[in-house]
Amino acid sequence: MIKLSKFICPAVKELAPYTPGEQPTGRKFIKLNTNENPFPPSPKAVRLACEEIARANLYPALDGGELRGKIADLYGFERPWVAVTNSSDEALNFIFKAFCRGREAVFADITYGFYSVFAGLNGVKFTEIPLKSDFTLDPNDYIGIGKNIFIANPNAPTGLEISLDDIGNIAQSNPENIVVIDEAYVDFGGESALKILRKHQNLIVVRTFSKSRSLAGARLGYVFADPEIIDDLYRVIYSTNPYNISRASMAAGIGAIEDEEYTQKNCEAIKAVREKTYEKLVNLGFKALKSSANFIFAKPPKMGGREFYEALRERDILIRHFDSPRISDYVRITIGREDEMDELINTTEKILSERR
Amino acid sequence: MIKLSKFICPAVKELAPYTPGEQPTGRKFIKLNTNENPFPPSPKAVRLACEEIARANLYPALDGGELRGKIADLYGFERPWVAVTNSSDEALNFIFKAFCRGREAVFADITYGFYSVFAGLNGVKFTEIPLKSDFTLDPNDYIGIGKNIFIANPNAPTGLEISLDDIGNIAQSNPENIVVIDEAYVDFGGESALKILRKHQNLIVVRTFSKSRSLAGARLGYVFADPEIIDDLYRVIYSTNPYNISRASMAAGIGAIEDEEYTQKNCEAIKAVREKTYEKLVNLGFKALKSSANFIFAKPPKMGGREFYEALRERDILIRHFDSPRISDYVRITIGREDEMDELINTTEKILSERR
Repeated sequence: MIKLSKFICPAVKELAPYTPGEQPTGRKFIKLNTNENPFPPSPKAVRLACEEIARANLYPALDGGELRGKIADLYGFERPWVAVTNSSDEALNFIFKAFCRGREAVFADITYGFYSVFAGLNGVKFTEIPLKSDFTLDPNDYIGIGKNIFIANPNAPTGLEISLDDIGNIAQSNPENIVVIDEAYVDFGGESALKILRKHQNLIVVRTFSKSRSLAGARLGYVFADPEIIDDLYRVIYSTNPYNISRASMAAGIGAIEDEEYTQKNCEAIKAVREKTYEKLVNLGFKALKSSANFIFAKPPKMGGREFYEALRERDILIRHFDSPRISDYVRITIGREDEMDELINTTEKILSERR
Repeated sequence: MIKLSKFICPAVKELAPYTPGEQPTGRKFIKLNTNENPFPPSPKAVRLACEEIARANLYPALDGGELRGKIADLYGFERPWVAVTNSSDEALNFIFKAFCRGREAVFADITYGFYSVFAGLNGVKFTEIPLKSDFTLDPNDYIGIGKNIFIANPNAPTGLEISLDDIGNIAQSNPENIVVIDEAYVDFGGESALKILRKHQNLIVVRTFSKSRSLAGARLGYVFADPEIIDDLYRVIYSTNPYNISRASMAAGIGAIEDEEYTQKNCEAIKAVREKTYEKLVNLGFKALKSSANFIFAKPPKMGGREFYEALRERDILIRHFDSPRISDYVRITIGREDEMDELINTTEKILSERR
C-alpha cells in the first residue's frame, strides 16, 4: 500500500483507507478481534446456499430477489422499505454517496472507523463530535444540528446504547437531514429504531447478517427506510453493480431469516457469556463498559491497551486494540464461545500475575 | 426508480443507471439474453464453495486470499500483479475511481454500457468514439489520444476483436494514460493482452469468472496490471470494502481455477455451437458478425431488432435488443446449449415463415 502509480488521481492519493482487524492465515489463534459470531451459520443457511451454488452460472436475482421480501416480512414491513446490500459497509458507502455529497455529516469521535473513510471516499466534509468522558453519547449534541447524522447503536467499540426516545428527538429536530442508525450489533441486547421508523421520514436503519446471523463471510447487509430513500439507494446500486449479492449469499440470507430461532438462541448464549466475562474482567481489575453488543470494551489494570493486546497475541489470543488517543488504554474483546472466554480469562490471569 | 427522496444529492439525481438484461422470475424462458454460460460451474468449484459456507461466520480472507495467487500462477504472473474483485464491474468502477477522476476517458460508441455509467458515477468526462460502419474499431482513433482508454476485446455486443499489435501501439502511444482492455469474453476465441502486459506499464487487463467459468452468480472478477497499479486498486478496495469477496465465491473461484480443463472444454463446446448457429442464421438471411465471444450480434431479415426480440419473447425465448440508434436493427444472441440453439433456430424459422 506504499508505492503509488503515476496514474493515480490526487483524490485517491489522499484516501485514508480503513484498517480491518487482523485475519490471520496459518497460525492458530483464539480469534476475538473482529466481532465474529463463534457459532457457524444456521444449517438451513448452509443448505440453501449449497444448493444455489450449482446454479451460479446464472446471474443472481436483481433488487434483492426473494430475500428482500423475507427481510421485510420478518420485521413487519413491506418490500419497498428494504434494500439488500453486499455488506452493511456497502450500504453505508451508498448512503454517503446518495445523500451526503455537497453536504456535511457528523458522527462521534469514537465510533465505527468506516464512517470517516466513506466520508473521505465520497468527498463529504464531516465533523466528529466527542463522546462524553464516560464514552456515552450526549443526544443534545445532535438536536437540531442540521447535518446528516451517523450513529452506531449500540456503538462500537464501546458497546453503549442510546434510547429510542433520543433517536426520535434527533430525527424530529433535523427534518431536512438523514439520521442513520447503524444497528450492526442490535441483536445482542439493543433496542431497534425499526420501532419508530414509520414515524420519521428521515430515519435510515442499517443492519448486517455478519454478527447475529453468523454470516460475516457472506457479505450481506440491509437497509430499512422510507421507500423513497430506498429507491434512491437502488439508483446507486444500479449505477454500481446491479447484481450486488451473489447467489450463494442471497440463499444463505434466506436460510438465516427462515431460521430466526437459531439466531435468537445464539444471541442469548453470547449475551450470557458476555455477562459472565464482564464479571470476571471486573474481578480481575479491568474497568469494563456494560455492553449491549457481542464485545466488551475494557481497560486492563497495570498495563496499557497495546501491551495487553500484545501479551495476549504472544499467547495465541487475538483481541483488538485501537491506536487512537482517547481509547489507547482500552481493548475491545469479542465474545466467543464459553471455552474461548475461559481461556481468555485464564491467560489474562497469568499475564497479570506475572506483573505482580 | 422514479420517485426521488428530498434528501438525494444532485449528482445522484443525474445518474443514468445501467439497464441489465431481464432476469425473469417465475415464467420459464430459454435464456439467451445476458451472456451466461449454459454449463453449471465446475463440480470442484461447487464442492469447495459448499465446504466454505459452513465457515461463513468468519470474515473472508483479505487481499483476495489464496485465490489471488492461484490466478497469478495460472497465467504466469506473480501475486502482486493481480487484484481480485467482486465482479469485473467492481474492477471497472474502481479503475474509473482511481485513475480517471479529473481526467478524460474515451471508449467506443458501441460497447459495454457500463463504461459511461461508471464515468458518470465518478464524475469523469468521457468521449465516445464511433466504431466504423462495419462495427470494427479503428485503432488509429486511439493512437496518441492522450486520454484514458477503455476497450472491450472482444467487444460487446459485437463480438469483434482488435489485434494485440494494435493494443500494443495504442498503449505505447499513450504513455501518460491507462489503457484498459476488458477481456470478459476473451476465453471464447480472443487473444489476451496478458501476453504483452509486462511490456506496457500503462496496460490494465480486466477479467471475469462470469462467462467462461460459469460463475456469473458468484460475482467474481480480477485485474492484471503492473503491481503499482494493483496497489492503487487495493487502496480503493480498502477504502470501500476490504472484505470484497465472500468466502463461498472465493472458494468457487479457487475450484474453477483448479479445474481449468473443465473451463476449456466448455469454451470449445460453446465455440462449436456458435459456429453452427452463425451458419444457420446466415442461411436464414441474417446479417451476422463473426464473433469471438459467447454471443452473436446479428440483424434479422424482414423485421427490426425489437420486433424479432418481441416475437421470440412471446415464444419463451429471451435474447437482447438495445434501443440505441446505430444498432436498433440488431439483436445479441447468447450461445446456449446445442438444444437451446436448435430451438432458437426452429422458432426463428417459424417467425420468418409467418412473414413470407
